[in-house]
Amino acid sequence: MIDIQNQQDHREIPIDLVGVSDLRYPIVVLDQKREKQETVATINMSVSLPHHFKGTHMSRFVEILTEHRGDMTMHTLPRILHTLKERLDAESARVEIHFPYFLERVAPATGSKALMDYTCWFHGESNGSSDDFVLGVQVPVTSLCPCSKAISDYGAHNQRGTITLEVRTTRDSNDEPHMIWIEELVEVAESSASAPVYPLLKRADERHVTMQAYDNPVFVEDMVRNVTAAMQQDERVQWFKVHAVNMESIHNHNAFAKIEWTRPA
Amino acid sequence: MIDIQNQQDHREIPIDLVGVSDLRYPIVVLDQKREKQETVATINMSVSLPHHFKGTHMSRFVEILTEHRGDMTMHTLPRILHTLKERLDAESARVEIHFPYFLERVAPATGSKALMDYTCWFHGESNGSSDDFVLGVQVPVTSLCPCSKAISDYGAHNQRGTITLEVRTTRDSNDEPHMIWIEELVEVAESSASAPVYPLLKRADERHVTMQAYDNPVFVEDMVRNVTAAMQQDERVQWFKVHAVNMESIHNHNAFAKIEWTRPA
Amino acid sequence: MIDIQNQQDHREIPIDLVGVSDLRYPIVVLDQKREKQETVATINMSVSLPHHFKGTHMSRFVEILTEHRGDMTMHTLPRILHTLKERLDAESARVEIHFPYFLERVAPATGSKALMDYTCWFHGESNGSSDDFVLGVQVPVTSLCPCSKAISDYGAHNQRGTITLEVRTTRDSNDEPHMIWIEELVEVAESSASAPVYPLLKRADERHVTMQAYDNPVFVEDMVRNVTAAMQQDERVQWFKVHAVNMESIHNHNAFAKIEWTRPA
Amino acid sequence: MIDIQNQQDHREIPIDLVGVSDLRYPIVVLDQKREKQETVATINMSVSLPHHFKGTHMSRFVEILTEHRGDMTMHTLPRILHTLKERLDAESARVEIHFPYFLERVAPATGSKALMDYTCWFHGESNGSSDDFVLGVQVPVTSLCPCSKAISDYGAHNQRGTITLEVRTTRDSNDEPHMIWIEELVEVAESSASAPVYPLLKRADERHVTMQAYDNPVFVEDMVRNVTAAMQQDERVQWFKVHAVNMESIHNHNAFAKIEWTRPA
Repeated sequence: MIDIQNQQDHREIPIDLVGVSDLRYPIVVLDQKREKQETVATINMSVSLPHHFKGTHMSRFVEILTEHRGDMTMHTLPRILHTLKERLDAESARVEIHFPYFLERVAPATGSKALMDYTCWFHGESNGSSDDFVLGVQVPVTSLCPCSKAISDYGAHNQRGTITLEVRTTRDSNDEPHMIWIEELVEVAESSASAPVYPLLKRADERHVTMQAYDNPVFVEDMVRNVTAAMQQDERVQWFKVHAVNMESIHNHNAFAKIEWTRPA
Repeated sequence: MIDIQNQQDHREIPIDLVGVSDLRYPIVVLDQKREKQETVATINMSVSLPHHFKGTHMSRFVEILTEHRGDMTMHTLPRILHTLKERLDAESARVEIHFPYFLERVAPATGSKALMDYTCWFHGESNGSSDDFVLGVQVPVTSLCPCSKAISDYGAHNQRGTITLEVRTTRDSNDEPHMIWIEELVEVAESSASAPVYPLLKRADERHVTMQAYDNPVFVEDMVRNVTAAMQQDERVQWFKVHAVNMESIHNHNAFAKIEWTRPA
Repeated sequence: MIDIQNQQDHREIPIDLVGVSDLRYPIVVLDQKREKQETVATINMSVSLPHHFKGTHMSRFVEILTEHRGDMTMHTLPRILHTLKERLDAESARVEIHFPYFLERVAPATGSKALMDYTCWFHGESNGSSDDFVLGVQVPVTSLCPCSKAISDYGAHNQRGTITLEVRTTRDSNDEPHMIWIEELVEVAESSASAPVYPLLKRADERHVTMQAYDNPVFVEDMVRNVTAAMQQDERVQWFKVHAVNMESIHNHNAFAKIEWTRPA
Repeated sequence: MIDIQNQQDHREIPIDLVGVSDLRYPIVVLDQKREKQETVATINMSVSLPHHFKGTHMSRFVEILTEHRGDMTMHTLPRILHTLKERLDAESARVEIHFPYFLERVAPATGSKALMDYTCWFHGESNGSSDDFVLGVQVPVTSLCPCSKAISDYGAHNQRGTITLEVRTTRDSNDEPHMIWIEELVEVAESSASAPVYPLLKRADERHVTMQAYDNPVFVEDMVRNVTAAMQQDERVQWFKVHAVNMESIHNHNAFAKIEWTRPA
């Protein structure tokens, strides 16, 4: 059978990335407490294509994904990227894995426990001999407006917000990227807001978080600055980007703030 | 050229609805203040198909939409439904039009003005000689939790919520459905919540709505009950459904409540 | 601490449904082949509220969900509904669980295997002593246009479509609802289209499905009729609704058809 | 009243962007044929914030938007950015405007006319004395698979795809960015695919586009290369990014390709 994809292309135009996207697949990720967690990911996989090839072989992406099923972590990503480059005869490869991740959260007063979901992602890219990894976490939080509190006789508008935090780590003495856990980024984000958000709160807990938020008013600007201060102090952090969004309770639009930072050489 | 759609079908299975969906189109709707408002709709149009026809003629939906462009209102819907039935040789026809609608809102203290968006829809169905019309409006509001206020020494969690209100009207002496304006449904929804949501608030306004919300705590249950009380009193209302959702500021999930009601005969 | 929710309400307005929505949670569902499958669900849980209560107790929904974690199937739903009614002191309860479900699919020529995702749901409602269950499946398929094939000298436009199928089953001699597997509904939907959709196709497979689709042209109307014919013949089916949508490859809008059917008494 | 936002911040952390997002607003854009087109945009507006300010003044974004209403084009963006910087006392400002844009399309055989929607955007950023503008267009197209055509005895799988094209232009002798019309980018994208997509096709037109697509098979790789070849030849193009996605009719996932290019100095 003819292999059109393998034919020569004469337009002299290399392609940065070509592959599959929006593929849902069950995966297993590392869990700091329980070792492994089964979840469902949305996956993009791609490679570069030299100018002289007409097309890539799309089915190989799903083949490789199927072979590695059960193991899509920061530890296994380098191997998957390497396999992609080899099997697709490519200079560079890129994988993006987005998934809900669950953590057991303990209510602050009653100790009631339930699972809460965080949208997370790994992005890995291997280009020649250099690899690049980004870990991302989206953390829902409560934010209470300092202006509203200061100018009102009582009350203060507050809302659910999300802090999206992406990070690249520095390398250890074996040139391996330092490990940062999803759990650690969740902690940084939550402590940068007015209060954490919980899956299960009894009345005593609700009283606790209501007053905690009122005691810790933050603008969306404060949230990204608080995250920045924490991340800059962590020597494992090579680069990060933080994007906070408040679903303003007094408006039908959102407020947001963004900071991107690279550790100076 | 052969007309496959017009061929006989022998499976003896009539089809309830067949047509086009998710079609974006610019439309003009009625505006209580400014007479006309240009906006962009997402449109579904369909007809019933008798068991003996193999298919409908999909292109005619877009033709009819194009002919009626510039006029998709509660007044013109009956004519569009009639045209659909005639041109597609159908017993019944259905049109669903969803669109953002803009109202100028005045901030409560400073009088600052800006436009706010409300997602609205008309659903019209004509079945034999009987017509049915539903008007829907989705209104963003502020809700402040009565429980959180009552049990906390200070503060109270609040959040953006949405009240979705759908209505069928009774008929006047000419057997025409009574007119209810989008503006009226927005007013019912906003006055059922802790405070309205505004597009533009200066600091004096923010102070005003912060205290207004604290003075008017409502559960999601209260919001649907307040809407219900108002709608039952309005003699033009034949049927309504209200669905309130709070994007809880202390959780990563929502709270909701629903009531559906038909005026007793 | 004061319990506002338990206070009397004097508006004399009962509430149809009140509860939590858009809650993500890991669940385990039944799998015809592998017995159990871990996945991630989006969950709505609600109860009715009598007119004399001011509010429901939202935290109990998550408590009950947490207690039943690991078992959200057609078999366990009745127990969950019963617990909801009991613990929330309600006349009726409703649970909606939406989740991606994975099946291993075998490519038609090479036998290559990979997992494919289907969006599925269980809706359960218990009202007084009567229970109601709906199973829903959304199946992606290929559809090839019979008109385009008939009028063109070569080729035929085709596209990805989705067939959404919801079903209620009749009861067996023990008054238990008959079991229908997700796998069976997927099979009905796929055999009603021009060809199934696969997660992994090598070139010999791509040749196979290309010609299979060309040999089996179907309108969106045909897809809902084919599903209807199959469902009506299955004595376990009490009621079903089928909604087919084609993401037309020649338009930027979709074509759809719908049939709803109840088995005559 | 106290102005918290104006207070000093001591964390020494400047903020890249702070502002409002997901704001829906009616706008007027330039139309090559009809001069002006009313549509509805989703808008993000932001400014940088020096390290010594605690917060920005969010209400001013909506004030400025309201003042400039009726004119959000590549021509007026520089003025809006300038106003943002001035009124919010900021070093840099950024505006992102996304909107549906409608063009009348003429069916290829019968000449039938109807409007088709294209999602478009302007991104403008002003940093100190340097301004940057990006125009983006998302164009739905038909793509027919060359491999499927070559290896099958008859037929070929095809599908709706989208080509997303973003461009920065070179500057003319007055240092103004060259104008490129949305209409021109649509033309580049459509001529890079197997066939355009239309809002209204009669049977003679359907025959035409079916055979046109079969005569012009393209991989997703070909689409980005065809766009690249056209853009590189246009001297007005300083930079572009093209991202093509095929909603594969034989899979439940998509295929994509990406090229980014800057004109060499």
